[in-house]
Amino acid sequence: MTPTRTVLAAPANNVEDLSNAEVASLDTSNVFHSWSAQGSLKPLAIAGGSGSTVWDYEGRTYLDFSSQLVNTNIGHQHPRLVEAIKQQLDTLTTVAPAHANYTRALAARKILSHAPTNMDKVFFTNGGADANENAIRMARLHTGRDKVISRYRSYHGNTGAAIVATGDWRRIPNEYSRGHIHVFGPYLYRSEFWAETPEQEAERALQHLRRTIELEGPQSVAAVLLETVPGTAGILLPPPGYLEGVRALCDQHGIVLILDEVMAGFGRTGDWFALDAFNVRPDLITFAKGVNSGYVPVGGVIISEEISRGFDDRVFPGGLTYSGHPLAAASIVASIEAFEEENIVGNAARIGADHLEPGLKALAAKHDVIGEVRGRGVFWALELVEDRQARTPVSPAFMGKLKAELLHRGLLPFIADNRVHVVPPAVVTPEEVRQALAIYDDALAAVR
Amino acid sequence: MTPTRTVLAAPANNVEDLSNAEVASLDTSNVFHSWSAQGSLKPLAIAGGSGSTVWDYEGRTYLDFSSQLVNTNIGHQHPRLVEAIKQQLDTLTTVAPAHANYTRALAARKILSHAPTNMDKVFFTNGGADANENAIRMARLHTGRDKVISRYRSYHGNTGAAIVATGDWRRIPNEYSRGHIHVFGPYLYRSEFWAETPEQEAERALQHLRRTIELEGPQSVAAVLLETVPGTAGILLPPPGYLEGVRALCDQHGIVLILDEVMAGFGRTGDWFALDAFNVRPDLITFAKGVNSGYVPVGGVIISEEISRGFDDRVFPGGLTYSGHPLAAASIVASIEAFEEENIVGNAARIGADHLEPGLKALAAKHDVIGEVRGRGVFWALELVEDRQARTPVSPAFMGKLKAELLHRGLLPFIADNRVHVVPPAVVTPEEVRQALAIYDDALAAVR
Repeated sequence: MTPTRTVLAAPANNVEDLSNAEVASLDTSNVFHSWSAQGSLKPLAIAGGSGSTVWDYEGRTYLDFSSQLVNTNIGHQHPRLVEAIKQQLDTLTTVAPAHANYTRALAARKILSHAPTNMDKVFFTNGGADANENAIRMARLHTGRDKVISRYRSYHGNTGAAIVATGDWRRIPNEYSRGHIHVFGPYLYRSEFWAETPEQEAERALQHLRRTIELEGPQSVAAVLLETVPGTAGILLPPPGYLEGVRALCDQHGIVLILDEVMAGFGRTGDWFALDAFNVRPDLITFAKGVNSGYVPVGGVIISEEISRGFDDRVFPGGLTYSGHPLAAASIVASIEAFEEENIVGNAARIGADHLEPGLKALAAKHDVIGEVRGRGVFWALELVEDRQARTPVSPAFMGKLKAELLHRGLLPFIADNRVHVVPPAVVTPEEVRQALAIYDDALAAVR
Repeated sequence: MTPTRTVLAAPANNVEDLSNAEVASLDTSNVFHSWSAQGSLKPLAIAGGSGSTVWDYEGRTYLDFSSQLVNTNIGHQHPRLVEAIKQQLDTLTTVAPAHANYTRALAARKILSHAPTNMDKVFFTNGGADANENAIRMARLHTGRDKVISRYRSYHGNTGAAIVATGDWRRIPNEYSRGHIHVFGPYLYRSEFWAETPEQEAERALQHLRRTIELEGPQSVAAVLLETVPGTAGILLPPPGYLEGVRALCDQHGIVLILDEVMAGFGRTGDWFALDAFNVRPDLITFAKGVNSGYVPVGGVIISEEISRGFDDRVFPGGLTYSGHPLAAASIVASIEAFEEENIVGNAARIGADHLEPGLKALAAKHDVIGEVRGRGVFWALELVEDRQARTPVSPAFMGKLKAELLHRGLLPFIADNRVHVVPPAVVTPEEVRQALAIYDDALAAVR
């Protein structure tokens, strides 16, 4: 069992001599990639970044209109976050979740200060997936029910087995043989309800949800879990009345409403939370990404007072080693302070209303391939279609070419199915938006 | 929806004035805790640490013989890791997993250099739970089977629902209606097999596993998932021949062997991997904790060449935003380099053989309450019993008193059920072990 593999000498002092090809090759021969076949990877090598820009190992820069995975809301290398993480590094880098630590407590407090006033505590996780895991756990234990209703067009994380593989007592309160029901949500551009107006779409989506709850048995439904604005699924802003109607259905049947704000929260929509634009108070909010722009892996659940109180005398059977990690906590405190002092949420709202919305709509007026422009803040989708009447999605080959044209012109895009998601950092400037709009324009012309 | 809650002013410049009570109160009023009822928490406030020592906000120090959650293998605040994280902070703090980054590739390479030679690539996750999630996913897709056999005395993480709540295509290849079978593993002190010797225990545990596989249907079993040395379950060293026998059963039936080294790996047992002490090559190894001592949240799967090749042309349907996080990667590279240059694995082995084993056995000779001493490296358990013949576990009240006596004497212990796990950092010194042994001795006497 003696290892024989040789290792590259650490070249910390000559990273500047690396080529993109060397980095990509070292990467693909050692790193197994998410959501990919591994044999044909051609990853972009990224060496550094600042604000809305990243660069490779050969000095080529890109406007980052992906925000990586729609998570660098504060942009790359914000000095306040970098400094806060360094300060925490000098004090205490890691601590078990059972203990108390001031930075962690302050991070929870800062998050709560921007949450709806019915919220009481924060449970920290490592990311969005385990945030949803723990929200579902809380809802099931709080209600004594097991079923969870969510939507087909949604993404809530990729975990689903470790606790049932576990053998000790911690498995028992987490085992559920029944589970998950998926419903259709509102999406007027491709309505599942033969609707023609936003009002109809909202009404019919609510009726569909109500009928599903009735036929599944309201007494068996623990939670309705929704992304406030479905993100990777297409940036699907809920029509007026929909979320409010979901809340009413949940209230009627004692169902916990979990809003997943992993992608939509912390400035993405031009609000602190995407739910702020609606008249709805969830019971649980899950977050990650924008809370600290991924500077340190972290996520969590914001818990209402009602649910929190239910665990005062009852053991919550969930947890994780890095819950409330000090470096993550320090970056959360710094990020929220920067958001407050630099009015980053306000910037995202203004960029959306004054620059992205008119700019993207002007693009749509010019390019027939854009079937719909929708979004808010720094959270926009261009739905690309072969035919505006039939709304037929463009082919994967079209999207591949478009991606190449965008990269070639120095813009790092976010591509999902037949859509371009225009999702820059919330700190993006009007000038950067102007540059990006010109690149989208040229690239669309080039592919056509 | 306007928040009205007030927030404490950031007191970054007067943290030294905080009392433990203030920090604990700020914590319990804002932070929701793992595996606990929330109403009666009395967390220890931890402000800082160094090596094997932590301290609170009032300057009281503790010998950390818990390694927090058995994860600070390199001790607190190792300067090499702190410096490496700072350097990475100055370059690139976060990057999406689809891109290539030199630090990430180097971290994978460093891990592979200490893994068995059949290992080919590393998939990075945020911690141990999602490492096991992705290992199970790989095993199921590689074999085309669904069942996973693991042990009753085990812990593999606390996730189990997010992917089935997800609505998009990523749910489909991850849905399994059948699932998990639990078997008994070898644990001679409390044998489930009426065994009297380690050889008998190994043989009978293997027969039990073989019969289970046969009756579940070998063609339905994707994976056997085992902690190489079950950790929280009691530090249960496998008897000679057991793991080798499991490997042979897996080979016979085309079953993937996943060894969970989240707690046991990276020096804990006095080896790079706990499996190094056995003649066994797994197909997948999961890791977290000791790989970077939790300085930044991270975990992952080490993947054999055979399984890795199977995903060259086939999409792996799993992933996460923070996979291969640059700060985590930088801390992994620095930690493994420090392990190599300071011979930290060798220190853990020597501490185990020369100090902990004789010292803990001397304690057992003195205190009847110690029913068994078992372990290796810096991974030891004292099994506390009311009666050495009957092996009746001591009561939770006894353990509560013991914990208080240990804390009172300045030792932060790891308590699990009726056991004290003696799990200091791998950098612990003989003098610190001597101090700790004296504290355990005094505390046991005080409780008796």
